[in-house]
This record gives sequence, C-alpha cells and structure tokens, in this order.
Amino acid sequence: MHYDAKTNVHGLKHDPFKTLVAPRPIGWISTLSADGRLNLAPYSFFNGLCDNPHIVMFSSQGRKDSQVNAEATGEFVCNMATWDLRDAMNVTSAGLPYGDSEFEAAGLTPAPSIEVKPPRVKESPVAMECKYLQTVKLFDVDGVKARYETIIGQVVRIHIDDAYIEGGMVDIARIKPIARLGYKDYAVVDEVFSMTRPGD
Amino acid sequence: MHYDAKTNVHGLKHDPFKTLVAPRPIGWISTLSADGRLNLAPYSFFNGLCDNPHIVMFSSQGRKDSQVNAEATGEFVCNMATWDLRDAMNVTSAGLPYGDSEFEAAGLTPAPSIEVKPPRVKESPVAMECKYLQTVKLFDVDGVKARYETIIGQVVRIHIDDAYIEGGMVDIARIKPIARLGYKDYAVVDEVFSMTRPGD
Repeated sequence: MHYDAKTNVHGLKHDPFKTLVAPRPIGWISTLSADGRLNLAPYSFFNGLCDNPHIVMFSSQGRKDSQVNAEATGEFVCNMATWDLRDAMNVTSAGLPYGDSEFEAAGLTPAPSIEVKPPRVKESPVAMECKYLQTVKLFDVDGVKARYETIIGQVVRIHIDDAYIEGGMVDIARIKPIARLGYKDYAVVDEVFSMTRPGD
Repeated sequence: MHYDAKTNVHGLKHDPFKTLVAPRPIGWISTLSADGRLNLAPYSFFNGLCDNPHIVMFSSQGRKDSQVNAEATGEFVCNMATWDLRDAMNVTSAGLPYGDSEFEAAGLTPAPSIEVKPPRVKESPVAMECKYLQTVKLFDVDGVKARYETIIGQVVRIHIDDAYIEGGMVDIARIKPIARLGYKDYAVVDEVFSMTRPGD
C-alpha cells in the first residue's frame, strides 16, 4: 500500500511514521533553566550530525523546557537511556508541573558535570556534555512553519562507565541502550552483528 | 572515565562517539543526479525531525552524491534497510566509481516512485518519497565550519508492504530493520517491548 503523507489519510489505526523511522536512539536530555531549575526529558528525534567535531541534535515540539533551557543557558547533557533505566526514563517522559524535578520523580541522582552546569544522570553509563550551537526552524514544502524545531549542540566532554570498556572498546551490548519505535514500542540492543564495508 | 571531546584524546582504540549515539536508524537514500544517474547509499546520521508534517534529515560528509543530487533535483527517497537486505545495504555503502549503479552492484531493483523521480528499492518493505527542503551548515563552538552538512526533506508519499500490516498496525518486528552502532557493528530489531507513558 502507499498513501499521500501530506494529507496523511492512510486507513491505519495510527500514523505509522514513527514506526517507519526506527529504531531511534534516545537522547535523555538534562538541562537547567536560567533560574537554576533542573529538567530531564527523553527525545527520540535525536542523533549525531557530525563525527568530528562531535555534533548532535534533538528535535522538539512546541518549545519544551529542554529547548528553552538549552537556548537560555547554552548547555545541555545527553544521557544514555538503557534497559536498566527504562522505567526511570519512562517516568521522565511525562510532563511534570513546572519546577518539579524529573530526577526526583524517577529516583535518579544528579551528578556534577565538568564543562557545563547541567548535571548528568549518575545512574547512566554514558553522558555527553554539550554546548548549544544553533536552532533550526523547519518549514514544509508550502513554506508553512512546522511545530518542531531542531536544537543542535557540540559534545565537549564524554563520560563512559569504565565497567563497559574492554580492550579499548566500548561493549555496547552490555550497556543495553534502548531505542524508540512507533506506538508504545521500544527495542533494546543486547546483541550485535558485524559487517565490513567492501574495500575496508 | 571521561575525556575532552574537543581534543578527542581518549586512550581508546577508536573514537567511541558513534558507539554512544546508538542505535542509529539507517536512511537508505536513493537519488538521481541532474543528468539522470541513479545513486543509492546508507546514512545513519538519519532521523525524523517532525511528525506532522513528516520531516526527515540525513547528515553527510563532504557533499557526497546523495546530497548533491537531492539539492540539484529537490527529491530523494528513504528506503528501509532490513535484516534480509543487510548484505545489499552493505554493498551500497562502498563508494562506486561515479555513474556506476549501486542498485546493479547490490542486485536491487529500482521501482518507480509516484511523486518524485528517484526510484525506490523494490525489495525494501518501506519507502518514503521526499521533497528536499533545506540544507543546514554546521559550525563548531569556535565558529569553524564542520565537514558535514544536514539535508532536510519532507516525506510526501509512504510505501508499506501490506504483508507487514496486521489489524491496522505495522509489525516492525517482522520487518526487522537494522540499525547502525559503532565500529563495524549493527543491531537488528526483531523483538519489541512496550511501555505506557505515565498519564496515558
């Protein structure tokens, strides 16, 4: 089957778009507001954009706290959401009343960052301290502004739990990152396979 | 352990950045050059940026064919890379001499698209026809231009193989998308778990 994605009349139960751009890595973003309030929220429109320098993005609907804070303070931290932290991550996906800490609601510990003010999630085996670079406004084919904007930052410091480093390599299958699919679905990476690019 | 990501002195065997932003979905991008030459290449700095309208991006180093073609013609198609197509996808990850068809090298069949000129991969169960919207230039914290640029497009038509639709839902675990990790590693999604957001 195929359908016009602009009118989005597909006859299915739900819009399948997020099922079809999958699996999406989760940027579990911690920020501080200009007046020092701590926020933590997961974004699956998240990925790297460049590997040297290390540039990442998250895309956010309707100027939520993470975006507002990253723009106001110039800083954010991307923590890794893992299988062990899946319930805590899920708790932080709910909108809490302004000023209530998602760290506290989810039983997570803020650990000091080194180059930025927002703390990282102590329980997460991976965290990337980031400096805000730019926000991209999105417009559709007719020039109409979309409700999402894309926040771009540079990774300035990387934390990795030594327990997951073996022989100079990160053992991602033991870290077990979770990823977002469509509907209410997630996947966990606990196994990998390898392919060598032709010519390498 | 933690290290300065700007100097990138980490003491590990390889830069772990791509291992830590993972699993990354793969946009398997088909394009036509201005003079009609067909290209197909996988990008894992790929994701959605907005779900209504459906906007996607891929980020590319050094103005490769996919970027040049998308900008020149205003069109590209994102095909889904799956477990069954993993070897074919890997073949298309090698740079072929200009004008040689990755479709042919990988034993893939170009199928006509409906709203854009670049064909989709017939063997792939999911394809998204896209119209080019904009290219974002990236700059680091010092204002130095990065080697990657981010290409953004709107999905205008979505193809889904009916064999994977059950009860109005897409069965992603049967489609088995593959995702990129670090090093030479990939993951396959052949199992899902579900979580309900608090309050839903």
